[in-house]
Amino acid sequence: MRRYRLALALLTCAIALPVSFSAISAPAPAKAKPLTTQQIIDAAPATAWRELDPNDTLYMDVPGGRVVIELAPQFAPQHVANIRTLAREHWFDGLSINRSQDDFVVQWGDPNAGEKNAKPLGEARTHLPAEFSVAAKGLHFHRLKDIDGYAAKVGFVDGFPVGEDAHGGRAWLAHCYGTVGAGRDMAPDSSTGAELYVVTGQAPRQLDLNITTVGRVVKGMEWLSTIPRGTGPLGFFEKPEQRVPIASIRLAADVPVSERTPLQVLRTDTPTWDAVAESRRNRRDDWYVHPAGHIDLCNVPIPTRVPPATPAASPPAQP
Amino acid sequence: MRRYRLALALLTCAIALPVSFSAISAPAPAKAKPLTTQQIIDAAPATAWRELDPNDTLYMDVPGGRVVIELAPQFAPQHVANIRTLAREHWFDGLSINRSQDDFVVQWGDPNAGEKNAKPLGEARTHLPAEFSVAAKGLHFHRLKDIDGYAAKVGFVDGFPVGEDAHGGRAWLAHCYGTVGAGRDMAPDSSTGAELYVVTGQAPRQLDLNITTVGRVVKGMEWLSTIPRGTGPLGFFEKPEQRVPIASIRLAADVPVSERTPLQVLRTDTPTWDAVAESRRNRRDDWYVHPAGHIDLCNVPIPTRVPPATPAASPPAQP
Repeated sequence: MRRYRLALALLTCAIALPVSFSAISAPAPAKAKPLTTQQIIDAAPATAWRELDPNDTLYMDVPGGRVVIELAPQFAPQHVANIRTLAREHWFDGLSINRSQDDFVVQWGDPNAGEKNAKPLGEARTHLPAEFSVAAKGLHFHRLKDIDGYAAKVGFVDGFPVGEDAHGGRAWLAHCYGTVGAGRDMAPDSSTGAELYVVTGQAPRQLDLNITTVGRVVKGMEWLSTIPRGTGPLGFFEKPEQRVPIASIRLAADVPVSERTPLQVLRTDTPTWDAVAESRRNRRDDWYVHPAGHIDLCNVPIPTRVPPATPAASPPAQP
Repeated sequence: MRRYRLALALLTCAIALPVSFSAISAPAPAKAKPLTTQQIIDAAPATAWRELDPNDTLYMDVPGGRVVIELAPQFAPQHVANIRTLAREHWFDGLSINRSQDDFVVQWGDPNAGEKNAKPLGEARTHLPAEFSVAAKGLHFHRLKDIDGYAAKVGFVDGFPVGEDAHGGRAWLAHCYGTVGAGRDMAPDSSTGAELYVVTGQAPRQLDLNITTVGRVVKGMEWLSTIPRGTGPLGFFEKPEQRVPIASIRLAADVPVSERTPLQVLRTDTPTWDAVAESRRNRRDDWYVHPAGHIDLCNVPIPTRVPPATPAASPPAQP
């Protein structure tokens, strides 16, 4: 098999050359062989990586495997607090994924929510304010230079894709592939975090500023994105047996260290990150004949890795 | 279950109000209840719909069901001709889907392509020119007014999402969810149409102008998008038994009429279409508090329907 067909489309390089939309022909050859995205990542200093905070990390165990979600308390503090409470109560355990709509979302929670036999939320709050956006002031906003149709400015805050208005007044966690949000009813303040969804298709940015986003899947998207689509309206499963069971949802802090998923995420506020973004904005490996000159906020996957092994401690000196 | 949670995010309405990026607060109430997208579609005249040309339609039968692909000879005439030849030879039958990479593509063809035991292409051509773009002149380009980071102008041509350069010189079929392209090696002219891929994640627009796009899935995406992800590099399956078999790929014209999939597609060059696009650009149903004021080229799904039953012909008059 020619395994490199199209495959090489993913190998990317980092040189900044401006490219106009009308420049269809191949660009002039670069003077030096630029680094690929992978080479940039491999060369990143240890400080370019970060650990997830166990208090902001959810493990969702489903039949395929573990989904790791990073929560965003800086964007939805009250929802995140409620989700932590629900996880600590083991509230989600035994509930299910109830909806899978192609090119949109997968959604989970209590299939009986809103009905007489709904599962009580326990210590969690049953009413929260809408948290659709936050004050931009004080956020560590690392901007992408690229234009965006949905927000005046886009970039990243602490590893989350973010939109910001023209005046820097408000900011919000944008709906990209993997973004997790809190389902709501008609009332903007009707979400509690007990019903969650994840984006599994083209970024539905029309949801931005219309619903509370609470985090992002950093690992294990494939266990959610491949769930067979529901055949009911909006992708809900028509039969209870089609629902996908949730074994458990836990805060990483509540899981023994030995059972946690070792994971580091590339920081989104470093020169390494800027080089990664540029290497995807203008692909310069030999496969490409036309660097795009643009990158979409939702088209910059954030690399993760298993933490490198730390050097074994020296054996204690003989007494 | 509160089935309408988030679900209502899909119900859309059509009123054009300009919305600035800084307008986070709710807009002024509309004077009249706008139509939802579904109401616009339901009210569309028969002339707003079109039939697929059986000579430009592929049926790909996989274990989940039938995938219907509309070919785009106006963008890749030589590749489409070759794909028709391969389908008429039943060349794809018994081959397989060999790659499934999360948030990117699913790819199929001969798993032995490029190796000694590769399947000969028969009457199909083994070398074609790259068809990355075509002359814009003469295309029936129906523009979207929205900005785009990857192309100076975007819109639709005969139901396909299309980018165009600033001077209207060249146009190309854009990589959106569901776009089908022809895998290639390092050489731009190394694709034949015997290896095909479909976009299953966030629009990889960086591929535009770098590879030949040949069509679009109009029905059955769920049978491709939910294929378990390959665990080899770039989502290739590591074991032959993980590959998904292709029962057959046929040109609809070669399938008996009784076995064809009844399907109509909404035209993308009518007032109905403009109303659909506007209803997605600015969602005005009661669920939304913030109409986006923008729609992305790849975020305007094109409606399809089963053709309405034609009135039964009158019985022949008695002789």
